[in-house]
Amino acid sequence: MTAAHLIEIWRGGLLESKHRGHLVIADADGIVEAWGDPASVIFPRSSCKMIQSLPLVESGAADAAGLGSEQLALACASHNGGQIHTNRVEAWLSALGLSEADLRCGSHMPRDRDENKRLTCSETSPCQLHNNCSGKHAGFLTLNQHLGGSAEYVEIDHPVQQAVRAAFEEVTGERSAGWGVDGCSAPNFACSVEGLARAMAGFANPGAGIRGEAQRRLVEAMIAHPELVAGEGRACTELMRATGGRAALKTGAEAVFVGILPDLGLGVALKIEDGSTRGAEAAIAAVLIHLGLLDESSLAARRFLTGQQSNWRGKITGELRRAEGFPR
Amino acid sequence: MTAAHLIEIWRGGLLESKHRGHLVIADADGIVEAWGDPASVIFPRSSCKMIQSLPLVESGAADAAGLGSEQLALACASHNGGQIHTNRVEAWLSALGLSEADLRCGSHMPRDRDENKRLTCSETSPCQLHNNCSGKHAGFLTLNQHLGGSAEYVEIDHPVQQAVRAAFEEVTGERSAGWGVDGCSAPNFACSVEGLARAMAGFANPGAGIRGEAQRRLVEAMIAHPELVAGEGRACTELMRATGGRAALKTGAEAVFVGILPDLGLGVALKIEDGSTRGAEAAIAAVLIHLGLLDESSLAARRFLTGQQSNWRGKITGELRRAEGFPR
Repeated sequence: MTAAHLIEIWRGGLLESKHRGHLVIADADGIVEAWGDPASVIFPRSSCKMIQSLPLVESGAADAAGLGSEQLALACASHNGGQIHTNRVEAWLSALGLSEADLRCGSHMPRDRDENKRLTCSETSPCQLHNNCSGKHAGFLTLNQHLGGSAEYVEIDHPVQQAVRAAFEEVTGERSAGWGVDGCSAPNFACSVEGLARAMAGFANPGAGIRGEAQRRLVEAMIAHPELVAGEGRACTELMRATGGRAALKTGAEAVFVGILPDLGLGVALKIEDGSTRGAEAAIAAVLIHLGLLDESSLAARRFLTGQQSNWRGKITGELRRAEGFPR
Repeated sequence: MTAAHLIEIWRGGLLESKHRGHLVIADADGIVEAWGDPASVIFPRSSCKMIQSLPLVESGAADAAGLGSEQLALACASHNGGQIHTNRVEAWLSALGLSEADLRCGSHMPRDRDENKRLTCSETSPCQLHNNCSGKHAGFLTLNQHLGGSAEYVEIDHPVQQAVRAAFEEVTGERSAGWGVDGCSAPNFACSVEGLARAMAGFANPGAGIRGEAQRRLVEAMIAHPELVAGEGRACTELMRATGGRAALKTGAEAVFVGILPDLGLGVALKIEDGSTRGAEAAIAAVLIHLGLLDESSLAARRFLTGQQSNWRGKITGELRRAEGFPR
């Protein structure tokens, strides 16, 4: 099955661009609604950080290190690299007796405006703490310390990544079709869009036992700290806030978005085939509206989907629309 | 006809994302090769600035104002807002007895790294000279002074925009399907991908007379000043340089790219349906390789299409590929 038309960009009354993709809404029993091809194989990229964090909690490593909900939220985050993020990751590493040099995520300039400006104007290079994945990597290091593995924790055959792979295959209910190296150098395992939605439905319906407890704690941490999961102005943060704590949301590179909706018992996974963040953000907003978790006229909905587009002089130029047949 | 698969993004041996689009290569007699739907209606956005500049030259306004090839290149540019761009636009306006305040393009932060840093660190707001379209608007103001129109030269019924519409419909060979407000507030007229390619083929095969002379001068100006048409590191600039002056290339927002290839007598127009610049840049590089104007292993080709993708630690993560059936 081919990708479905999901999001359209209109200008001057004409369709200018469009995003196609695959989208699955699942409950504990499987697919509830789907657009495009649920069997489409994707890389979840950063959207699966809560899955990558399961071994951290389930192994007891998180408790042994005394991690609180802020650290768990950061482990699931693609953060802006603002000081609210970097200071917490730095303190976390320090408490482990580790430092920024132990990270293997690499460095990039932070999206956080103030921190970006501070680095730019002081001609300071960003460090690995600024990497949007530094919280996930601090989680990997915490697990690694617990397991006693080697320093190169992002290698595919390292115990940390093998534990991640096992958890990933269990919650997606699939043997991974393959893996690639992510932007942060960690392995990223492929799965179907349906598998990713199934995994999110699992987080939305946590059972008893170690797995359910870990899922519950990670979801609660994300919902409690939306500003740590991404940052001011970002879709994850603003849409989580707008749902009033009824959704844990997470973006991934190349236009993946997932949602965990505990009080509806639903999981959502979507991939825009062209890799455009614009399309993925609009599509997750559309799903939240469809499921009654987001008001069409709210500031967050208008920002990512329903508002009019304007230019540098504030003139209205067009709008985003849900394609015909897409949820509303 | 639907959009054709053109560019793929691979990671870990799996297809991660893909770009579909419409692409036409035309000569003076019409379509030579096409992918997707040549009749697809698009907004050319900034890719048609050389068309929007025709009335400036044909009216005699450019000569009356003593414009040289630098100004003509800037009129066709989506520049980085570096000082090599802003200083020239400012001097041009000054020679007309006008200033930045007469522009109607609005302001945005420049892409040029040094100028962006200067503004950021001095807490200075960008001005309209920094707008990537300020050269085109200086051209509009030059034409407007010649025509004696009102100050609001971006209104759809203003003589400047009516002259642009007439030229646009003549060179595309189509009655425009509609218009929208562009990012810079100027009207942008819609046409088919075939019509845009036909227009570019016209620029590649300029006839005698006023139009042909204007086309020749604009193309020569673009080719003579690739750094003014965009800026260091940008696809237009780097790919024009890599073809050694055998192509005038121009990008447009929402993933449009055009090429004027005088010594082959060909025009190219392409639109990636999802609006992704990544896809458009890769596709125009693929066309240039296909037509023998760009070496697959050149730095510019590797940068925009044929090179491997790497992450923040320099690890290879994947690659872009031309989809099956796409030119090579």
